[in-house]
Amino acid sequence: MFKAVVSIRLRPSILDPQGKAVMHALSNLGFGAIAEARIGKLIELSVEADSAEEARSVATSACEKLLANPVMEDFEIDVEALEPAV
Amino acid sequence: MFKAVVSIRLRPSILDPQGKAVMHALSNLGFGAIAEARIGKLIELSVEADSAEEARSVATSACEKLLANPVMEDFEIDVEALEPAV
Repeated sequence: MFKAVVSIRLRPSILDPQGKAVMHALSNLGFGAIAEARIGKLIELSVEADSAEEARSVATSACEKLLANPVMEDFEIDVEALEPAV
Repeated sequence: MFKAVVSIRLRPSILDPQGKAVMHALSNLGFGAIAEARIGKLIELSVEADSAEEARSVATSACEKLLANPVMEDFEIDVEALEPAV
């Protein structure tokens, strides 16, 4: 069993209204040191696979088919082994 | 200038309906190898600070005051240096 941690970020050229709202709230709270905020998604998948490569390929395919919007978003996948549930 | 990457995850004991919906969609698409999906947030903050420690402390404070819900969520912060905009 592997854990695939998928980080999905808006492409840099895409406007991020949710990030702007967070920035605004941070400014109101006095966080003047924060210059920009961008919001993405973090998806953790538990994948049954024989190898990390296989788990990564399943996660990549899930991103391409469902999780990420290829026009607006980039994704990145980290795979780590999970101990089997005994 | 530093980039603080904030990973916000639901605590393991908290039900994740959005993750369940994604799981359901993945099953329908034939991703039988994926046993669980949990959805979190990935927030990237650009922080003006003199050191990585200072940037981390600003980001931690922003999480505690605004970004994360301490009852339901855990957060984790990675700080990396950004090249100054020339």
